Amino acid sequence: MGKINVTVWNEEAAPPQYQPAYPEGIHAAIAGFLEGDSKIGTIRTATQNMPEHGLTEEVLNDTDVLLWWGHCFHEMVEDEIVERVRQRVLSGMGLLVLHSGHASKIFRRLLGSNTNLLRWREAKELERVWVIEKNHPITAGIGDYIEIPESETYGEHFDIPAPDELLFISWYSGGEVFRSGCTFKRGHGRIFFFSPGHESFRIYDMPQIQQVIKNGIYWAAPLSYPQQFELHQPKSPNEIFKENNA
Amino acid sequence: MGKINVTVWNEEAAPPQYQPAYPEGIHAAIAGFLEGDSKIGTIRTATQNMPEHGLTEEVLNDTDVLLWWGHCFHEMVEDEIVERVRQRVLSGMGLLVLHSGHASKIFRRLLGSNTNLLRWREAKELERVWVIEKNHPITAGIGDYIEIPESETYGEHFDIPAPDELLFISWYSGGEVFRSGCTFKRGHGRIFFFSPGHESFRIYDMPQIQQVIKNGIYWAAPLSYPQQFELHQPKSPNEIFKENNA
Amino acid sequence: MGKINVTVWNEEAAPPQYQPAYPEGIHAAIAGFLEGDSKIGTIRTATQNMPEHGLTEEVLNDTDVLLWWGHCFHEMVEDEIVERVRQRVLSGMGLLVLHSGHASKIFRRLLGSNTNLLRWREAKELERVWVIEKNHPITAGIGDYIEIPESETYGEHFDIPAPDELLFISWYSGGEVFRSGCTFKRGHGRIFFFSPGHESFRIYDMPQIQQVIKNGIYWAAPLSYPQQFELHQPKSPNEIFKENNA
Amino acid sequence: MGKINVTVWNEEAAPPQYQPAYPEGIHAAIAGFLEGDSKIGTIRTATQNMPEHGLTEEVLNDTDVLLWWGHCFHEMVEDEIVERVRQRVLSGMGLLVLHSGHASKIFRRLLGSNTNLLRWREAKELERVWVIEKNHPITAGIGDYIEIPESETYGEHFDIPAPDELLFISWYSGGEVFRSGCTFKRGHGRIFFFSPGHESFRIYDMPQIQQVIKNGIYWAAPLSYPQQFELHQPKSPNEIFKENNA
Repeated sequence: MGKINVTVWNEEAAPPQYQPAYPEGIHAAIAGFLEGDSKIGTIRTATQNMPEHGLTEEVLNDTDVLLWWGHCFHEMVEDEIVERVRQRVLSGMGLLVLHSGHASKIFRRLLGSNTNLLRWREAKELERVWVIEKNHPITAGIGDYIEIPESETYGEHFDIPAPDELLFISWYSGGEVFRSGCTFKRGHGRIFFFSPGHESFRIYDMPQIQQVIKNGIYWAAPLSYPQQFELHQPKSPNEIFKENNA
Repeated sequence: MGKINVTVWNEEAAPPQYQPAYPEGIHAAIAGFLEGDSKIGTIRTATQNMPEHGLTEEVLNDTDVLLWWGHCFHEMVEDEIVERVRQRVLSGMGLLVLHSGHASKIFRRLLGSNTNLLRWREAKELERVWVIEKNHPITAGIGDYIEIPESETYGEHFDIPAPDELLFISWYSGGEVFRSGCTFKRGHGRIFFFSPGHESFRIYDMPQIQQVIKNGIYWAAPLSYPQQFELHQPKSPNEIFKENNA
Repeated sequence: MGKINVTVWNEEAAPPQYQPAYPEGIHAAIAGFLEGDSKIGTIRTATQNMPEHGLTEEVLNDTDVLLWWGHCFHEMVEDEIVERVRQRVLSGMGLLVLHSGHASKIFRRLLGSNTNLLRWREAKELERVWVIEKNHPITAGIGDYIEIPESETYGEHFDIPAPDELLFISWYSGGEVFRSGCTFKRGHGRIFFFSPGHESFRIYDMPQIQQVIKNGIYWAAPLSYPQQFELHQPKSPNEIFKENNA
Repeated sequence: MGKINVTVWNEEAAPPQYQPAYPEGIHAAIAGFLEGDSKIGTIRTATQNMPEHGLTEEVLNDTDVLLWWGHCFHEMVEDEIVERVRQRVLSGMGLLVLHSGHASKIFRRLLGSNTNLLRWREAKELERVWVIEKNHPITAGIGDYIEIPESETYGEHFDIPAPDELLFISWYSGGEVFRSGCTFKRGHGRIFFFSPGHESFRIYDMPQIQQVIKNGIYWAAPLSYPQQFELHQPKSPNEIFKENNA
């Protein structure tokens, strides 16, 4: 496939009070640590306030993996753009859904359930992200767990379909557990949800978190964009076989 | 839970040319063979031409398992009703999606992928529905396979997420295979897709097909409708534990 | 199927120092709270020191669900008996593997991996067993979580294949998480692993724990014991179909 | 990881009547088409008649992916060697189980069920291997299906646990279906079962079949061989965290 073209989406570049720990915007912080990665090609950022939320057909058709961060403005994302992203994922583009992106329209729309439903609390609790599956490309290079000294607490029950793979489970000092790293395949696309990454703590500066996100990008990148076949097949495979072997 | 209240939905009661083998309507045919089942309580039918497609809040709130048959008029189902059904499924109601219902809005919306995408051919081919999982409530009483002398052919690739359970795989004399019986859990609801049931062949008169559908209803019926918890939890479980054990 | 015949197995009835909290033996404690359950028929106990470990062909053939508790003497269980139990599970008998039974020969043999591998610590820590899947027969009647004030700590990584269903995840006050309730289907049999139940704390007296175990028994009980088919099929299904429809 | 070291195992090099289409031995045929692959390093063959069946500690420790073909002599494979291979798989080595290898001790031992149980018939029937999952590394470059003009027929029910991924389903002209391409993860190892490859038809000469096997090798190769942690953890993660952050 060559290099992986990545687009990092953030709901809003403008009002810094919504992402207080990231005056540059979370999209810029993430794009920043992806810079220079030898497997990654074009790195774009796109934000909600841009025309078409920055996700034009042209941009999506040149994106292999899309990263999605959103929190307060999910309902203001246009349905038409959500559907455009969804079709691109189903045709093969990878998608990383980060932190509060669990409540985004695109995640709800791709998984079908009310993925916005989970327990949460902002109490600067210790989060310990345990690796459940080793020898997996997404957990490569991560030891037994990642420790985040101050995090937002997420807790079960989290309303997602059973993931295809459960890679991380988080422990929080307040008493909750959470399925914090999950993969899903939908259509030809691969989706990775990873919950660490609150707007008030600079978790995206942690090398282990950066490694997981890079690993997620490598994993989610499509091998190919499979062509759609004809749905109506008036001639059977057996007839075609006979003709070919006549 | 007591008896299971069932509603059988069909896209259109009126124009018989769309369901030529069932002058009474497919919904009536299905409701007919459910009659007298000791585990089933109220049996309703609802059709697309009724107000709110027959799926009012009142009807849904009194339905434990909904059966969905549609073919030609999927796009004319109101989005608002689809969303109402979806939320009822996520809160625990069971859903059986039958035959061409694979392309319905509700199935696409709950699974997130383009479930309308599959190969198909109307050629009166022999279908043999193989049981993949025995000792499962849905395949109970079915032997090794069901044979349908004349059926519509469906074939892979079928654009569904990997099912939670793969119960049946169909063989067709023209050369295709198809995942014809699949279960999915979404939210608190259970979904069973079962593909046999074309509008031109009276497959719903076959005792084995009727048995699978009844089994599917028993399986999909909720044990309970779990209550939604508070999302924001200002007090941690550990604090609550300490208070309770002070 | 009628009532469910249950056998509760324990590694050793004799030396009470190995199960200090249960002078009567853990098998007797479990059998005790199953007494009087209207869905359960014959309740047997069997222990390792009995001839054939109490698991004769006769006993197994009359057992619908077997409960397995063991800790210190796994390696002294005869391979022949393990194989006998395994074949009975594959033919449909349910199996509940409790607590340190995770390291038993039968669990390792049925799952194929080194299920003895997990972190552990005896430190009387608080365990909170979170429900991951509601509206499931095994979690029925359990609220959001179960709290065990003093428990043995188990932690990931736990070397099991990805379970068919992940029903419970435990949180421990020392900082670990653990997949504490998992279902697996092997052959025609259903297996439920449930980790709470240490020999030093009378966790099996807790009503919620008893409820989960009873629920597990109902869930694991076979609907039927499917017959084995002939492996070699000299005549094809199509030939048989033609003969039947000639 | 660098290049992938591969070992191709065959039950018996000697009696050619058992593998009539392959006078050179199936192991040699497979090793032959792997030659020159740029991702593959050392290619070894090993056969049952060699000391330790050719699978010494030294050989296994230098093998990243093992291919297993066997048919008539499964029961004569030493249990000790099977256990050695199993532990190497659990520690990360990939395993490809080919054709009648479904009945091998190593496959039964890793999956836990009676994987020898399936329907079969030698009738030179047409097999059509349908791709179920596109955009997967194992199906890359394969179109919609592979056609094998003369094959041995395998049919459901096949006694395997539900695979982690179902990649291929085969259609046979006699009327059966079969889950012919499945992946499983056990311990840290990846297992790919692929059924085409009978001893009487030179199926391993087909470029598509060779591609699937090469793809399987790339997929099964470990990223790493994770180290085993200490099981008993007298000090909790929270204590360690406090010490590290004191």
